[in-house]
Amino acid sequence: MKNYLAPLGPKADKDTVRRHNLSLVLRAVREEGPAAEATRAGVSSRVGLTRAAVSSLVEQLIASGFLTESGKTFSGQAGRPGTALKVARTGPAGLGVEINIDYVSVCVVDLAGTGRVRQTEHLDNRGAPPGEVLARAAGIAARTLDSAREQDLFPVGAALALPGLVSGGSVRQAPNLGWNQVPAEEVFAGALAALRPGAAVLPVRSENEANLAALAELWFGGLEAVRSFLYLTGEIGVGGALVLDGELLRGAHGFAGEIGHVVVDPDGPECRCGSRGCLEQYAGQTALLRAAGIDAAGGGASGVMELERRAHAGDARAVGAVAEAGRMLGRVLSGAVNLFDPDAVVLGGIYRPLMPWLSPPADRELTGRVVSGLWSGGSGRLRASSVAGDAARGAAALVVQDVLADPAAYAAGSERLGA
Amino acid sequence: MKNYLAPLGPKADKDTVRRHNLSLVLRAVREEGPAAEATRAGVSSRVGLTRAAVSSLVEQLIASGFLTESGKTFSGQAGRPGTALKVARTGPAGLGVEINIDYVSVCVVDLAGTGRVRQTEHLDNRGAPPGEVLARAAGIAARTLDSAREQDLFPVGAALALPGLVSGGSVRQAPNLGWNQVPAEEVFAGALAALRPGAAVLPVRSENEANLAALAELWFGGLEAVRSFLYLTGEIGVGGALVLDGELLRGAHGFAGEIGHVVVDPDGPECRCGSRGCLEQYAGQTALLRAAGIDAAGGGASGVMELERRAHAGDARAVGAVAEAGRMLGRVLSGAVNLFDPDAVVLGGIYRPLMPWLSPPADRELTGRVVSGLWSGGSGRLRASSVAGDAARGAAALVVQDVLADPAAYAAGSERLGA
Repeated sequence: MKNYLAPLGPKADKDTVRRHNLSLVLRAVREEGPAAEATRAGVSSRVGLTRAAVSSLVEQLIASGFLTESGKTFSGQAGRPGTALKVARTGPAGLGVEINIDYVSVCVVDLAGTGRVRQTEHLDNRGAPPGEVLARAAGIAARTLDSAREQDLFPVGAALALPGLVSGGSVRQAPNLGWNQVPAEEVFAGALAALRPGAAVLPVRSENEANLAALAELWFGGLEAVRSFLYLTGEIGVGGALVLDGELLRGAHGFAGEIGHVVVDPDGPECRCGSRGCLEQYAGQTALLRAAGIDAAGGGASGVMELERRAHAGDARAVGAVAEAGRMLGRVLSGAVNLFDPDAVVLGGIYRPLMPWLSPPADRELTGRVVSGLWSGGSGRLRASSVAGDAARGAAALVVQDVLADPAAYAAGSERLGA
Repeated sequence: MKNYLAPLGPKADKDTVRRHNLSLVLRAVREEGPAAEATRAGVSSRVGLTRAAVSSLVEQLIASGFLTESGKTFSGQAGRPGTALKVARTGPAGLGVEINIDYVSVCVVDLAGTGRVRQTEHLDNRGAPPGEVLARAAGIAARTLDSAREQDLFPVGAALALPGLVSGGSVRQAPNLGWNQVPAEEVFAGALAALRPGAAVLPVRSENEANLAALAELWFGGLEAVRSFLYLTGEIGVGGALVLDGELLRGAHGFAGEIGHVVVDPDGPECRCGSRGCLEQYAGQTALLRAAGIDAAGGGASGVMELERRAHAGDARAVGAVAEAGRMLGRVLSGAVNLFDPDAVVLGGIYRPLMPWLSPPADRELTGRVVSGLWSGGSGRLRASSVAGDAARGAAALVVQDVLADPAAYAAGSERLGA
């Protein structure tokens, strides 16, 4: 009988413990939020380390630019006043780069989680070779880094949000971009380094864009107590992500969440993925605009605005097309809810503005098909994503979470923070 | 921005640490397996506690019956010979009770994970009131406990495996049993206590039976390196479970894995769950036998044996019925694989003997419909469950895992193990 309990690891050594405690102290200060004032004494009682140990860790975090300290604060207790500690609003930050079918969006998020710089360019990436798209994205990123520097923000890492199957630094396949086996991290990092001679090389990671949009929803959206949810984002493709108890469910190979390729009708239209009758063929942007009789030649974003306008005006074909997409979404979602039992289903991308017409039929399917009355229509468990839920911001915030989890790994002068 | 990192808990106190270390030492001895010989010195270097601390913990584990020690062992190093430690093969154990549609199966698993006693009774539970079924199961459990006592095994807890939505000790709904809101743990515990006056009251927990069959597959089956898999068990219903990185994925409310109620055809036959066209209506035992033209009046088990016999004999209707069920399974499974990205899909219950006819069409659907060539036909990722994968054994083993995780909570003389 195998053991499912946590494996018996070796005891942590001194270096591991110190790095862990740097993270603990940084997070403890950060969780006080911008309003409250953290003190060394407060952190000490919060995390259970001695006052002396906390002071030493705090000094290192200040020296490396992760914490700042300001004026005196009075705790109300006897003794010397402490100085107030805060997470730095300048210095280390995260860079997020979303490469999507018809736009590239880049943003910088500071250690507190605030979005500070954003640059978005609309352009059709479908025809271009991957290397060219990544080089263009690097160009936008370089300009964003210039803007960030003017605010004294220096991203210590970058994360790429990509609309496809992402694993081990590469895009295995992004059917809507036409990418196959593209070593995106390496190409992007190389292009960015070439644009910034002499600058420190930024470590780059990559992730599926729906996964990052879901994390942005979790961290910045209005989900409140919801910790487990299914996230769907309608674009040219239909992306999906699963968040369980606050953690992204990536699957065994990193490809989980491909709800756009769940089959609706086994004999339905061919899909770019090679199968037939995938959800994307019924509820993706192209299918939706076609069903509504809207020529998308002017670009997807304007097509969706036109669809929304017509639906508002009561155009029967537009309303019918959105309702039918909602029914198909609801049908596939009911299966996903039966499998996964989330607290909520969050719809983003093009579905956000279409919710008034999309949501009722989807909710009806869920109510009828989720087992044993576990889904009640109108319960609010089917909801639109918040504006904040975007993949570029999620990508930048992922870098910030990396920093919070192990500040020593990201310190400019890491020898000062090391063992 | 919310923090997705592990919450900052308080420091562990002495009692928590001692209980944790008791578990650590017990598991370290157990992981040596029956062949190897664990010594205090070996455990000490393995878990990183001092020799004195390990000795003190070992004494308590021996006194409470979790460990035994035998003859002298020579480590090959200088110094005194140690005594060999082993996990006790008598004393504390786990009791598993599976209540299914047409049978009840009870088993006892010892601390090493070996199944030691088993009693199964075939009986149709569909007509009977829940209290009667649970009382009958308690009767079988009481007789199994008597048999266990003859082997000096004394289960310290029981787990119920139930074919329905299980949460908070109750069956919310088990459509194929006809149960609604049945407080199964309480009723079973009461019935068992009434049958064993004067005996210690056994703590009882409960879980969905497919979840426990999946855990049995994980712990006792031939999955080897597979840590993430989808498990389907064909019975009168179609149960499912998701194991991700060695852990059961229970969902936000404990109802995850209901793959039997994923929709195949939105306008298909009515299902007991209230929806239409669920997978169960195409690949459940009743549907399968009906499609094959087999009268299931003689009981499900004999019906499935007859189906297997006819398929072996090349009966076209039987082979066609199983192949069609395989196609429907494959179609739903492809969606589930796109969502979850597991290493493998494991089919148990009635699907096991039918794999020669069921597996090829299911594998073809998976190959054609899982995104981007991530599933190759014949790769062995679609496989039959092992014989060992049964819910009663999984239930008993779950109790054993509970014991290993916190032996102090289960010690007969817990004051000896407590802080």
